[in-house]
Amino acid sequence: MSDRIRMKSLLSKVCTADEAAAMIKDGMVLGISGFTKFGDARAVPLALVKRVEAGEKLSVSLMTGASIGSNLDEDLGDHGVIARRLPYMGSAKLREHINAGRTMYLDQHLSHTGEYIRGGGLPKPDIAILDTTYITEDGGLVCTSSVGNNALWALNADKIIIEINETHPFEMYGLHDIYTVGARPGRGPIPIVHPGDKVGTPYIPIDPNKIIAIVVHQLPDTPVTLAADPDAYTIAGHLMDFFKHEVKKGVLTNSLRPLQSGVGAVANAVFAGFQDSPFHDLTMYTEVAQDAVFDLIESGKMLAVSTTSFSVTKEYMRIFDDVTKFHGKVVLRPQEISNHPEVIRRLGLISINTALEADIYGNVNSTHVAGTKMMNGIGGSGDFARNAGYTCFVTTSCAKKGKLSSIVPMVSHVDHSEHDVNVICTEQGLADLRGLAPRERSRVVIENCVHPNFKDMMRDYVKEAEALGGHTPHVIGKALSWHQRFLETGSMLEADAALA
Amino acid sequence: MSDRIRMKSLLSKVCTADEAAAMIKDGMVLGISGFTKFGDARAVPLALVKRVEAGEKLSVSLMTGASIGSNLDEDLGDHGVIARRLPYMGSAKLREHINAGRTMYLDQHLSHTGEYIRGGGLPKPDIAILDTTYITEDGGLVCTSSVGNNALWALNADKIIIEINETHPFEMYGLHDIYTVGARPGRGPIPIVHPGDKVGTPYIPIDPNKIIAIVVHQLPDTPVTLAADPDAYTIAGHLMDFFKHEVKKGVLTNSLRPLQSGVGAVANAVFAGFQDSPFHDLTMYTEVAQDAVFDLIESGKMLAVSTTSFSVTKEYMRIFDDVTKFHGKVVLRPQEISNHPEVIRRLGLISINTALEADIYGNVNSTHVAGTKMMNGIGGSGDFARNAGYTCFVTTSCAKKGKLSSIVPMVSHVDHSEHDVNVICTEQGLADLRGLAPRERSRVVIENCVHPNFKDMMRDYVKEAEALGGHTPHVIGKALSWHQRFLETGSMLEADAALA
Repeated sequence: MSDRIRMKSLLSKVCTADEAAAMIKDGMVLGISGFTKFGDARAVPLALVKRVEAGEKLSVSLMTGASIGSNLDEDLGDHGVIARRLPYMGSAKLREHINAGRTMYLDQHLSHTGEYIRGGGLPKPDIAILDTTYITEDGGLVCTSSVGNNALWALNADKIIIEINETHPFEMYGLHDIYTVGARPGRGPIPIVHPGDKVGTPYIPIDPNKIIAIVVHQLPDTPVTLAADPDAYTIAGHLMDFFKHEVKKGVLTNSLRPLQSGVGAVANAVFAGFQDSPFHDLTMYTEVAQDAVFDLIESGKMLAVSTTSFSVTKEYMRIFDDVTKFHGKVVLRPQEISNHPEVIRRLGLISINTALEADIYGNVNSTHVAGTKMMNGIGGSGDFARNAGYTCFVTTSCAKKGKLSSIVPMVSHVDHSEHDVNVICTEQGLADLRGLAPRERSRVVIENCVHPNFKDMMRDYVKEAEALGGHTPHVIGKALSWHQRFLETGSMLEADAALA
Repeated sequence: MSDRIRMKSLLSKVCTADEAAAMIKDGMVLGISGFTKFGDARAVPLALVKRVEAGEKLSVSLMTGASIGSNLDEDLGDHGVIARRLPYMGSAKLREHINAGRTMYLDQHLSHTGEYIRGGGLPKPDIAILDTTYITEDGGLVCTSSVGNNALWALNADKIIIEINETHPFEMYGLHDIYTVGARPGRGPIPIVHPGDKVGTPYIPIDPNKIIAIVVHQLPDTPVTLAADPDAYTIAGHLMDFFKHEVKKGVLTNSLRPLQSGVGAVANAVFAGFQDSPFHDLTMYTEVAQDAVFDLIESGKMLAVSTTSFSVTKEYMRIFDDVTKFHGKVVLRPQEISNHPEVIRRLGLISINTALEADIYGNVNSTHVAGTKMMNGIGGSGDFARNAGYTCFVTTSCAKKGKLSSIVPMVSHVDHSEHDVNVICTEQGLADLRGLAPRERSRVVIENCVHPNFKDMMRDYVKEAEALGGHTPHVIGKALSWHQRFLETGSMLEADAALA
């Protein structure tokens, strides 16, 4: 144990998870580790689950990096523990409580939480619970498989509970780069000019006096699953063709720009596609590294990856067997830095994120089913989409056995506006919207991206809308009618509705 | 004349405006000076107007900084000359051509145009036409009352026409700071850490071989008008109270943060309000400086102003009588820098922009009347709103003699999403949305911002929507019904509609 707690004065703080969980009181604000399920604080929150399973009533505000594993959002949510939640979650069960209005959810840009916490727009955590590989002699926290908001919580919480996670090797030291933006006024530039640059410390420097408990555990990270999706490879192929075309035009080289992608099957398919492509000496500046990224590092295609989190399937948990091969190639940063507009704009990223739906003018909905029901949250997509060099959104053209078109006349919720979106890509094809006015965009989106079943309906809509005039033509009374039809009949297709 | 053209080899390029205008051919892409009407290229474009008034058919793409004066958008638009227009315009007449689909309008974030031009997302200008105070011995262009995209056009155009504007004093030299972001990869940080920092050159360095004509003129800038608006002072008062409250909480000092505001009466009223306030040692990092800003500089309340343009009324044209008093206090930058997310985020601006309409969840429409008809454009509001420390939107609570509510259930077009908007303020009051979930936001917006005539209607909508569930409750079939009612009856009020 003393190998993992090298600041000897802290050894007296070691206790059980139950003892640490007992320090959490009703009404507290908790800031805990965790991003895309990895590196979540788990031993103490699981002990909290035991308390509420035993009948105790408890309600807290839960702040994380992003989604967390260990079934925590599910179990705590079902027991009514999560009164408030931010800045992201990915739990189908917690979603139910959010959509019923039982959990107040703050769906934030992942780079924004730090500014709110420091600037008085959000309460500071009463207690931080931090997943940690080991504590250095000077009281520095060596993070695990994600950094997320750990440094933010450590600096701003009243008190800190450390979880020493023995499933991670000591060689995690050297993967992290902890840089904190300075106070205002007087804040200086973030000196990152290449994704691999290290500009901070390899651990989170903390005030050891804030530590109230240290819990040692051997609970592993929660691997993710990647659904097999043939359309994902078709979409990836369209994107590859687009990149090749940009190279041919001379505005990109075969090293492209630093790449960013969200989580999921399409993103993984895109990166798998780079393996046998003409592209080389690739880099990433992203918030999450999935399976295919590690293959690219091992094959030498990918030179440097900046991220705030790993998120891999069970098979790829093997990357933790020898992390030294990623030293000097992978940097795990605080999410405020991995997602910082300053660096994203400087590097001119190629950003690829998933749309829940997009409209014919280039607006994208990433969050709300039929305008009202939260899916997961905007996550980092807005941080990247607004500031990237190429802002691409991908989606399959339809869902629900062809009854729901992912391309609609008007999105029912806007997370990314027409001002920000450059490319929309479905398995049908790719629409490059740069340099096009709305009336030109609608034509390209319909011809290239809309599923054939919906093309005529969409053409009719545009014809009727343009007859009414306007820079962005719409029939206001019908703009959301596709969603309304879906809510009423289970299909956006007019033919289905006629049968219903 | 040799005082104004100090590089002697260029004297041979002097010609008349008609001769220069003759170099512009049908189908060309023009990049010209001008931002918030000031510093526009005018002599040569006005000669172009003469050509088309004489019956010539001509069609061009017109790119500027932002809005231009000299009646150019009006006259060129009416003659069908403007086939494409970007990134902003503020002309009621050109608006008609845009909304009729005769002019293709690209409504862009004002900081984005440079990235598109360099990155192949937009064509480079065939000819740049640049408003200039004088040309230095080395061929540097000293700008006039705006910088806008002048450096971008100068660097990227095939050919350059210079307009020497003799209405501006030689002492304009010293007000400008021309900094150009570097090429990617390898681009470094923008080293601005205080609004007054100068990090570039006082002129635009150009390649003199690209200059094909120089036209000397004495045509003055076009002053703006500021409508008298009693509600503007009420709104300014609510904002002042909010700032005072933030000071009291200890998250701001009486020097606040660098301020930004859009154009118009409310913005000017806010800055007029600072004159007799407890706030002092103020700074601005903005895209436009209006009348009240110069009063604050002269009174010593305002220490430093970074902007890309002046935009003053006829009375305040007097500022050009002695600009030396603004040396060291006012910096005019390229709009890519005045609006750059990197610097905006670093400085943590207080950003105040005008909403056309806002909804109960904090989404803002800055551009589209009833979802379809372009008003002016998003301008820089998105650059600031996304990246500022405080993102505030102001609007009067209703318009059209009380028949149109500026706060609606769902905005008909989203320029700024709920993720970005912190504060909504009307003459009724101010809603601080930070830290609130959608169901909490709707209550605060209704109670604080909605006009009394619409409060009960809005409460009924929310009640019906919440009964249907969802993170962001809406009745999708009725979400845009207020707009639909307005289009059909000329009023959003249900009582009016019943009479209609």
